[in-house]
Amino acid sequence: MVTRARVLIDCEDAKGLVYQIAKVFYDRDLNIDNNREFVDKEQGRFFMRTVVSGMFDIQELLEELKTVAPEDAHIRVVEPKDKKIILMATKESHALGDILVRHANGELDAQIECVIANHDTLENFVRRFDIPFFHVPAEGMSREEHEEHVMKLISEFEFDYIVLAKYMRILTPAFVKAYPEKIINIHHSFLPAFIGANPYKQAFERGVKIIGATAHFVTNDLDEGPIIAQDVIPVNHRLSWRDMQRAGRDVEKIVLSRALSLVLHDRVFVNGNKTVVF
Amino acid sequence: MVTRARVLIDCEDAKGLVYQIAKVFYDRDLNIDNNREFVDKEQGRFFMRTVVSGMFDIQELLEELKTVAPEDAHIRVVEPKDKKIILMATKESHALGDILVRHANGELDAQIECVIANHDTLENFVRRFDIPFFHVPAEGMSREEHEEHVMKLISEFEFDYIVLAKYMRILTPAFVKAYPEKIINIHHSFLPAFIGANPYKQAFERGVKIIGATAHFVTNDLDEGPIIAQDVIPVNHRLSWRDMQRAGRDVEKIVLSRALSLVLHDRVFVNGNKTVVF
Amino acid sequence: MVTRARVLIDCEDAKGLVYQIAKVFYDRDLNIDNNREFVDKEQGRFFMRTVVSGMFDIQELLEELKTVAPEDAHIRVVEPKDKKIILMATKESHALGDILVRHANGELDAQIECVIANHDTLENFVRRFDIPFFHVPAEGMSREEHEEHVMKLISEFEFDYIVLAKYMRILTPAFVKAYPEKIINIHHSFLPAFIGANPYKQAFERGVKIIGATAHFVTNDLDEGPIIAQDVIPVNHRLSWRDMQRAGRDVEKIVLSRALSLVLHDRVFVNGNKTVVF
Amino acid sequence: MVTRARVLIDCEDAKGLVYQIAKVFYDRDLNIDNNREFVDKEQGRFFMRTVVSGMFDIQELLEELKTVAPEDAHIRVVEPKDKKIILMATKESHALGDILVRHANGELDAQIECVIANHDTLENFVRRFDIPFFHVPAEGMSREEHEEHVMKLISEFEFDYIVLAKYMRILTPAFVKAYPEKIINIHHSFLPAFIGANPYKQAFERGVKIIGATAHFVTNDLDEGPIIAQDVIPVNHRLSWRDMQRAGRDVEKIVLSRALSLVLHDRVFVNGNKTVVF
Repeated sequence: MVTRARVLIDCEDAKGLVYQIAKVFYDRDLNIDNNREFVDKEQGRFFMRTVVSGMFDIQELLEELKTVAPEDAHIRVVEPKDKKIILMATKESHALGDILVRHANGELDAQIECVIANHDTLENFVRRFDIPFFHVPAEGMSREEHEEHVMKLISEFEFDYIVLAKYMRILTPAFVKAYPEKIINIHHSFLPAFIGANPYKQAFERGVKIIGATAHFVTNDLDEGPIIAQDVIPVNHRLSWRDMQRAGRDVEKIVLSRALSLVLHDRVFVNGNKTVVF
Repeated sequence: MVTRARVLIDCEDAKGLVYQIAKVFYDRDLNIDNNREFVDKEQGRFFMRTVVSGMFDIQELLEELKTVAPEDAHIRVVEPKDKKIILMATKESHALGDILVRHANGELDAQIECVIANHDTLENFVRRFDIPFFHVPAEGMSREEHEEHVMKLISEFEFDYIVLAKYMRILTPAFVKAYPEKIINIHHSFLPAFIGANPYKQAFERGVKIIGATAHFVTNDLDEGPIIAQDVIPVNHRLSWRDMQRAGRDVEKIVLSRALSLVLHDRVFVNGNKTVVF
Repeated sequence: MVTRARVLIDCEDAKGLVYQIAKVFYDRDLNIDNNREFVDKEQGRFFMRTVVSGMFDIQELLEELKTVAPEDAHIRVVEPKDKKIILMATKESHALGDILVRHANGELDAQIECVIANHDTLENFVRRFDIPFFHVPAEGMSREEHEEHVMKLISEFEFDYIVLAKYMRILTPAFVKAYPEKIINIHHSFLPAFIGANPYKQAFERGVKIIGATAHFVTNDLDEGPIIAQDVIPVNHRLSWRDMQRAGRDVEKIVLSRALSLVLHDRVFVNGNKTVVF
Repeated sequence: MVTRARVLIDCEDAKGLVYQIAKVFYDRDLNIDNNREFVDKEQGRFFMRTVVSGMFDIQELLEELKTVAPEDAHIRVVEPKDKKIILMATKESHALGDILVRHANGELDAQIECVIANHDTLENFVRRFDIPFFHVPAEGMSREEHEEHVMKLISEFEFDYIVLAKYMRILTPAFVKAYPEKIINIHHSFLPAFIGANPYKQAFERGVKIIGATAHFVTNDLDEGPIIAQDVIPVNHRLSWRDMQRAGRDVEKIVLSRALSLVLHDRVFVNGNKTVVF
């Protein structure tokens, strides 16, 4: 029995859904502490996130909700507790550091299982936080061979999400496919502007007046997955591309941490190649 | 009979409210096109804005909703049609002009009944838009006398809201009391910073790096009513206070028009001295 | 003789430039009221905008500055007075209206010579402002034929800039070439994201969390010219692409008016495919 | 002899200043790599920050600049190297952590001498970064007694700035006076809104739609010193004041780090109760 849970429903839209679902809560004497819905009219899809409280069995509630929801419904009843995450990084510390500091001070609402990096640059830095650090070098290997090592390592952990905190290698479709809707990336541009390599240099050369960062789920195309969060900062002609890169770091880390927080609190639904964020 | 309406409910929070209300819609075979709820835990207050469609009588739906809602409930069932507004101004044209242009091109979702101003500066400008303009001079009159003239004029119109588009006179409590939750003002600062006269000069003298504007309902204290919308822009040491004033105009007009649009679409609930904006 | 002018210099960088130029001002007993410089290290290019006051002859000052600047220098000495502009539009009124309102109330620092549109939708609207309106229909004509009519019309006016206030036709290279660095466009996306047709629909389909607008000089590639100003607003899953379009209008008009103001005050230098904005 | 320095001049405005100063650089065969000026017309005050390169003696250059500048001129010629800072904190880790992570990864352009805190909560956290941590408890002491201990400790270090990274105690005038223009604070509101205790609660109760943070030099009045940097984020009715506090932390840390970076690069001049930021 639990006293509080997040009910997450994602299904084909149908008349009476809110009523039917609210009836389940009402009949079980559950309180609705918080409730958000959205109907994607174009796709005919219904999304709902409700925080309920009372005294109930999670499995029983789930089963009953299944009886009122359409057959295709994706229903979860989730206890609000820390999830487990694996971090992946390369050499840069800002995005990784932001997550580690939040974790060290109990503000992350997640347990960090380990940090995996393709360079050893950040080893000492990560060790300061008493988090296991694994260096999986990629030199002299094919992309597939390297990923095999990484996946073997990952398989030793239980985890809910893999967070690419400036992991600067392109993932193969096989890797991405192995963890669907479980990999979160921070891309250092305001997608879809400046897809691909060195977006700050591209931004500098295009002479834009604003730069940004994008956190998204990773799908086959590295920079094309559903966007979770974005933010921007103004720049001007005085900044070199390295200045833009430096200025961009603050946006990157804030956007990644914000997206991660949304995901950890079960506020993000994937809707085709887009997201619904409650 | 109508086919679409906005249901607006504001009442003491109670268990089962969402269920009871959804049941009314369900039993009458109404579709929920859009639904947003909020519970103010601190005040124990429930807010709901639902767009329903089907075939129904507004008065009947209202009566039935009253039977399931708490006694204190403030319930409205509103057809989505243009509201009527009265504009008040002084000498500045930017906020007024923004509303007039939207109106002229059918983008306001409101009818402008007239413009009332305490100076005649804007007369020709307003006439360009074929909107009645009334100059109610205040010279040589007490505040009360002037407002009497204004109120007499207002009484000749049907209207839903009075919009102060840079009306630069302080209103008496009597005037404000006459139109509760019906007067919308744009204040040229990021309230509650720089309450009172000449906020740009105050902002300049304080050396702030950001200035803003605030749209709010007018209550007894001119700058203290419930805030509907706010926005800001960065400034720096190079701007004189007149430069700040000029830069601020764009924020003022955008914030006022945004707030007005929210109000016209019944998206704003007053909650004590705050607002719930859906 | 004038008492105040803007000195605008754009040349290859060289040692002693600031000294040499400041010496000219000093020797002529001119005050530097305002001074901004920028060196593009990568291109080795120097930019300077100085407001000087005193009592002087513009032509003489220009000639003297030429003696101290590198041979390739592009030097202008400009009196701070209203420039002349031609507006071009199609059917949408928001960007056009914003400029017309500023003009009507003496806040534009420019004279509007006329509005040219390929539809007559905005005729009555423009006439309200006592601005000549010319409808140059494009039906049944090749792009070249239509532009011939437009260019003939343009040739009857003296003007400094052509402002495309949501002119929804693609210009031919010949047209663009005829008015180098004189055509300012507002593009309804945060360039370089969503180049091409219907950017709001593209943005909606990509599921971005921020949309924007870009004002730029028009060069051969319609959406590829030097960017003058950009701004953004947050959006979310609840907005349809038409909602995004509506929300985007405010950004479009503010960004275009801001860019226009910068250009009218001689604050924008073109630097290859980028701008230096003082 | 050095090859590069920042020249910082702050004096009464006078005709020919730019020329006189540029002449000094020219005569010594120095390159101007970067140059920014500002004249505060209202106060008749001139500010200049120039980065020069070449081969020169700092003391000699300083002496020569003194000969051309007004008597009251405050002139500094500063080598671009790491400054030394002391951090002060209480219990919260976000602002402190942001600075420590930047330092750990060589991105701060400063040496952290130590962290002084009035609680021991952050001791383990700070130790992870190999930075000396001093706990100076305040219990059972008068404000003056406690500060005496802190000042004694401070006196053992060489430092350029004291950074209050969420140091939650009010400083006495005596303390502030001891380190003029050397103490940088982050205030958790968009000053001057919500001066005083618990600004997030104040913001929540006022129902604002935007919250912010302000980094400023500390003068006698804790929240009244010259503002260096500010930023904001949108909030809405769904956030409790604790949610606002949580959301505000990201702005606080980014604003403090941005202000610190500006100060460390000698980009900030104090101008009465305001700043000039180049």
